[in-house]
Amino acid sequence: MSLAEQPYLGDEALAGMLKKAGLRVDLSQIRGLLAGVLAAPAGEHPDAWIDLVAPAADSACRAQLDALKRRLAAEAPPAKLKSATARLAALRKELERRSLAGFLVPRADEHQGEYVPPRAERLAWLAGFTGSAGLAIVLAEKAAVFVDGRYTLQVRDQVDTGLFEPQHLTEQPPESWIAGNLPKGGRLGYDPWLHTPDGVKRLRQAAEKAGGSLVTVDGNPLDAVWSDQPPPPLAPVVPQDLRFAGRSAQDKRESLGRALAGDGIAAAVLTNPDSLAWLLNIRGADVPRTPFALGFAILHDDGGVELFMDRRKFTPGLENHLGNRVAVSAPEGLAASLDRLGQAKARVLADPATAPAWIFDRLTAAGAVIAERDDPCLLPKACKNEAELQGTRSAHRRDGAAVTGFLHWLAEAAPKGEVDELTAAARLAEFRRAGDLFRDFSFDTISGAGPNGAIVHYRSSERTNRPLTSGEPYLVDSGAQYVDGTTDITRTVAIGPQSAEAKDRFTRVLKGHIALALARFPKGTTGSQLDSLARYALWQAGLDYDHGTGHGVGSFLSVHEGPQRISKIPNRVALEPGMIVSNEPGYYKTGAYGIRIENLVTVIEDARPGDERPMLAFETLTLAPIDRNLVDKSLLTPAEIAWLDAYHARVREVLSPKLDAATAAWLGQATAPI
Amino acid sequence: MSLAEQPYLGDEALAGMLKKAGLRVDLSQIRGLLAGVLAAPAGEHPDAWIDLVAPAADSACRAQLDALKRRLAAEAPPAKLKSATARLAALRKELERRSLAGFLVPRADEHQGEYVPPRAERLAWLAGFTGSAGLAIVLAEKAAVFVDGRYTLQVRDQVDTGLFEPQHLTEQPPESWIAGNLPKGGRLGYDPWLHTPDGVKRLRQAAEKAGGSLVTVDGNPLDAVWSDQPPPPLAPVVPQDLRFAGRSAQDKRESLGRALAGDGIAAAVLTNPDSLAWLLNIRGADVPRTPFALGFAILHDDGGVELFMDRRKFTPGLENHLGNRVAVSAPEGLAASLDRLGQAKARVLADPATAPAWIFDRLTAAGAVIAERDDPCLLPKACKNEAELQGTRSAHRRDGAAVTGFLHWLAEAAPKGEVDELTAAARLAEFRRAGDLFRDFSFDTISGAGPNGAIVHYRSSERTNRPLTSGEPYLVDSGAQYVDGTTDITRTVAIGPQSAEAKDRFTRVLKGHIALALARFPKGTTGSQLDSLARYALWQAGLDYDHGTGHGVGSFLSVHEGPQRISKIPNRVALEPGMIVSNEPGYYKTGAYGIRIENLVTVIEDARPGDERPMLAFETLTLAPIDRNLVDKSLLTPAEIAWLDAYHARVREVLSPKLDAATAAWLGQATAPI
Repeated sequence: MSLAEQPYLGDEALAGMLKKAGLRVDLSQIRGLLAGVLAAPAGEHPDAWIDLVAPAADSACRAQLDALKRRLAAEAPPAKLKSATARLAALRKELERRSLAGFLVPRADEHQGEYVPPRAERLAWLAGFTGSAGLAIVLAEKAAVFVDGRYTLQVRDQVDTGLFEPQHLTEQPPESWIAGNLPKGGRLGYDPWLHTPDGVKRLRQAAEKAGGSLVTVDGNPLDAVWSDQPPPPLAPVVPQDLRFAGRSAQDKRESLGRALAGDGIAAAVLTNPDSLAWLLNIRGADVPRTPFALGFAILHDDGGVELFMDRRKFTPGLENHLGNRVAVSAPEGLAASLDRLGQAKARVLADPATAPAWIFDRLTAAGAVIAERDDPCLLPKACKNEAELQGTRSAHRRDGAAVTGFLHWLAEAAPKGEVDELTAAARLAEFRRAGDLFRDFSFDTISGAGPNGAIVHYRSSERTNRPLTSGEPYLVDSGAQYVDGTTDITRTVAIGPQSAEAKDRFTRVLKGHIALALARFPKGTTGSQLDSLARYALWQAGLDYDHGTGHGVGSFLSVHEGPQRISKIPNRVALEPGMIVSNEPGYYKTGAYGIRIENLVTVIEDARPGDERPMLAFETLTLAPIDRNLVDKSLLTPAEIAWLDAYHARVREVLSPKLDAATAAWLGQATAPI
Repeated sequence: MSLAEQPYLGDEALAGMLKKAGLRVDLSQIRGLLAGVLAAPAGEHPDAWIDLVAPAADSACRAQLDALKRRLAAEAPPAKLKSATARLAALRKELERRSLAGFLVPRADEHQGEYVPPRAERLAWLAGFTGSAGLAIVLAEKAAVFVDGRYTLQVRDQVDTGLFEPQHLTEQPPESWIAGNLPKGGRLGYDPWLHTPDGVKRLRQAAEKAGGSLVTVDGNPLDAVWSDQPPPPLAPVVPQDLRFAGRSAQDKRESLGRALAGDGIAAAVLTNPDSLAWLLNIRGADVPRTPFALGFAILHDDGGVELFMDRRKFTPGLENHLGNRVAVSAPEGLAASLDRLGQAKARVLADPATAPAWIFDRLTAAGAVIAERDDPCLLPKACKNEAELQGTRSAHRRDGAAVTGFLHWLAEAAPKGEVDELTAAARLAEFRRAGDLFRDFSFDTISGAGPNGAIVHYRSSERTNRPLTSGEPYLVDSGAQYVDGTTDITRTVAIGPQSAEAKDRFTRVLKGHIALALARFPKGTTGSQLDSLARYALWQAGLDYDHGTGHGVGSFLSVHEGPQRISKIPNRVALEPGMIVSNEPGYYKTGAYGIRIENLVTVIEDARPGDERPMLAFETLTLAPIDRNLVDKSLLTPAEIAWLDAYHARVREVLSPKLDAATAAWLGQATAPI
């Protein structure tokens, strides 16, 4: 989809073309915008940004704009402070200047997002660690970096352990490290934009245990020394069509406003970008794999919204779409609006689990009364409406056809010994890209052959790439962002003949998957209550898996969303009709292989004759064959066999019309009753 | 066991007999003690109190002491303030005198106990409601009584609804009633001895929402008008033999003291009587069915204990048993000891879930730093040691023989139409009383025929008594306190032929029971995680039950103890080896019948070849046949059938040697493979 690459003809030539096209935009504006565009992921439509400045440009002009972008990307000045030693020294100098004994550098942005924009990659800049979760603590004489079990190897690979002592986040929590290392009387600084009040509370106790104190900083000291820190990302913000959203933004705003009013709350501060996307029916592309735009909002009890977002990223017509009850300001305007709420002594909702401490501090200082509650968008966003459910079902049919095409290709190519993890993932991507309404992948594909499949958060690279080898199970976990729905599917495929052990494990995982898929449960049941159903068959053999069984999934939004989840961790959120959640038990044998079977399901009302309680159940959304070659039928009960055969019949029936003849024929075999 | 009843010969005669026996105790002392003795349950050994004053008395003297007790019990003056109207008016007058707009009357004592002594039955005295949980709120113009779903009928039966508006505890919580009814500026009083800090917090918010305030009272205003309020109970306190306790009190005190010291905590305030019983290896009988003595304690970090308990209830030798590291004071001494901790600025542990708010207020006022933690005895008490486990296994063998004797009798008597709920319960009690080491029942037997079985907390009475009728299932839930263990068992018995529906329900309950009994689970698993395993088969048919699946059980202590439980309600306490918990799924069809199958189980290490995780499992302790006449075999999997047959084989093998020939023969049939 990208423009044919042309050389850049120079500012004068481009200015002339823009002028000729009647576009009133100057090049300094465009360069400013492009700095932000380059700080957003390129995505599948790298020239979409052009609509932000020159939607009417002809193809020649577009080609030059694209060329300018490439020129700027290539021109990026070489990084300053090239060594980690220099960066750490610069930060320590800044801390000393501010009389701070230490500073916390979490891998976090202002939205506590799973993906963060480049300017929030402070931990990567400082220490070199690029994992999706972590924290550095820098003191005058020592520093440590804390990562969880997924990253214990990676951190030693990426970080100079002479500068940063690697620590295990749960075995040696930051709190106890602080308690043991912060000097008495030392002031430990934190950026209140990057921590939640819940997090600050724990850190404060730790600092006080050490006889020191936790202090908020005015301006991040790391940003002060990171002179080439990228700007905030500027990816185009577009409306989400009502056809897919199913409910107007006005209706959402007003109904949530009424609910606030009913609780005596004047306004709610929204800091989760997916709440903004849902509430206002807008989508963006500021961070990878997740179609939302970074920003903040205040929802008032009359349904009016103040949106704090850089207007430059609005595509033409977006302000009309937002309507006149949504007042747009620059992100810097948030402080003044919070102050106004404070002056009015308003009762203001903020979510202590996700909103930055800065919001709470500002509101309190201004005189507001804070009502600590969940983000009010969380629950209605999680419960998909009929249009969203129809959309996701449609997306899953297309996604299932793509995955089936891939599995068919794999069944033919793998035995020839021609496939490795990277070529498999690339081929799967091609199948998906060919589908209607495809916008992006919903996360980086996990393509793990044999032992690599046992690494739960594995990402294949040239260095780790492994051929799909006969006798080894191959695990592939992937998903896509379609305008009408987000998908996420894992299949484990037998490459050649499989050991009895692998079949036993696969079948136990399948039994867990089926137990959930078949479960009926009374209204009010939480995902935590259901989690053990997926583990029972593994537990009986002394086995388990170290991840949750199911996470919430958005509607063309985050592939991981709350508030529901199926997990060992207690959770008080009842499953409600319309919620989408994954069903993904697994088993991992380190150094040997990994198994996971993942379908997305949605919660449905399930009234049957004789029921004495209002019951719910799951409707399986994902459509793709489960590899029968890994099933040990003798371990399955008749009910389990019936489920598998019925699921396969449905996969065959729905997908066959969408497949070419050869693939359909293969699917016929792959879904035959066992 | 009670003495032959003799007429009382008069004070002079008794004094003479005591003097002759060389007993230096005067009659006023004895009368004072007897007031407390009469405020404790009579129990199975109503003359045990005599050892407190005259252990060396001969039988004639004992008979006279017993006669005096009967005289005093009969002489009890008629209740003052006979009508609820008069009692409520007296309380309102007292509230007015104290400028209180209202007052809270919870069904609670200072220990937040399930059973409370007569002097704490304030709710019953005021409003007439005798359920085991409830709360009255008295305002100047109106009053309400809040009860849970178990008691919605009973409350209307017992309470004058013209005086007290009955309310449903969860549908119309006290907090919202307060918010809606407390007058603006009104002071709502509460007795800080009867509420926990967690409870006070909720009530305070409610009072403030109404524009009023929640205030602590100095002396309970209800006690001020309850002129004939009984004194605290005085039942004999005895040592729990090391043979049964398995671990010396010194060892417990010192190891818990070390743990406190390790956490930088100087002392822990203990307010749970079962914590005192466990820690000091003592038992009592101050409240029904639960062998503990009411009191308080402070455990110091050096292992020393201050025990606040009325010495008059100590049996001879108890102080020796306690040893010189346990300093005994009268209950009133607690305040001064807390003040001393405050003066020392000590860090003091108190449990905000169970300790009275009074403790927290006093400690804070005195200058102590409170460490809010679980009662440190909870977890070690829950994890039974080897001696306790051997004891409970032995108790369960005796209990199982008694229950089997009863079931055999029932199988013969019921078809003759001669049995009703009360005669059945009485016969069962006889079987139990005949057993070694029997001390009491562990709760009032639930004996429910047909529709009465569907009332979860049913207690049969002359008024509700129902014959065991052919075609109706009969539910009997009962247990005993043996010196070596506490039992709790429910069996549902087919009286005559049963409907296909009842068999279907029974078998689904059984499937849930077996799923738990067979479950293996990794270390760290909580009871909440396992709960759904017991419900799955019912859920599949649209059925459920409205109670927990399992509660902790003490070792010759409370039949309901924490911190573990198997329940829908989230609980972060992992199951640990030695914990005892019930496994009791059920099904209740209102107006028709109730089904419950309850065994006690203990958590055991369960390592097997091939395990990749440290695994735990349950060992079933309870031994008695499960009625095969209610089993629909076609609903059971081969693994479930194997469990039932193996359980029955074990029941038969263990119990047969303890049974008479006829009972053993009957058991042989009752436990035959299905």
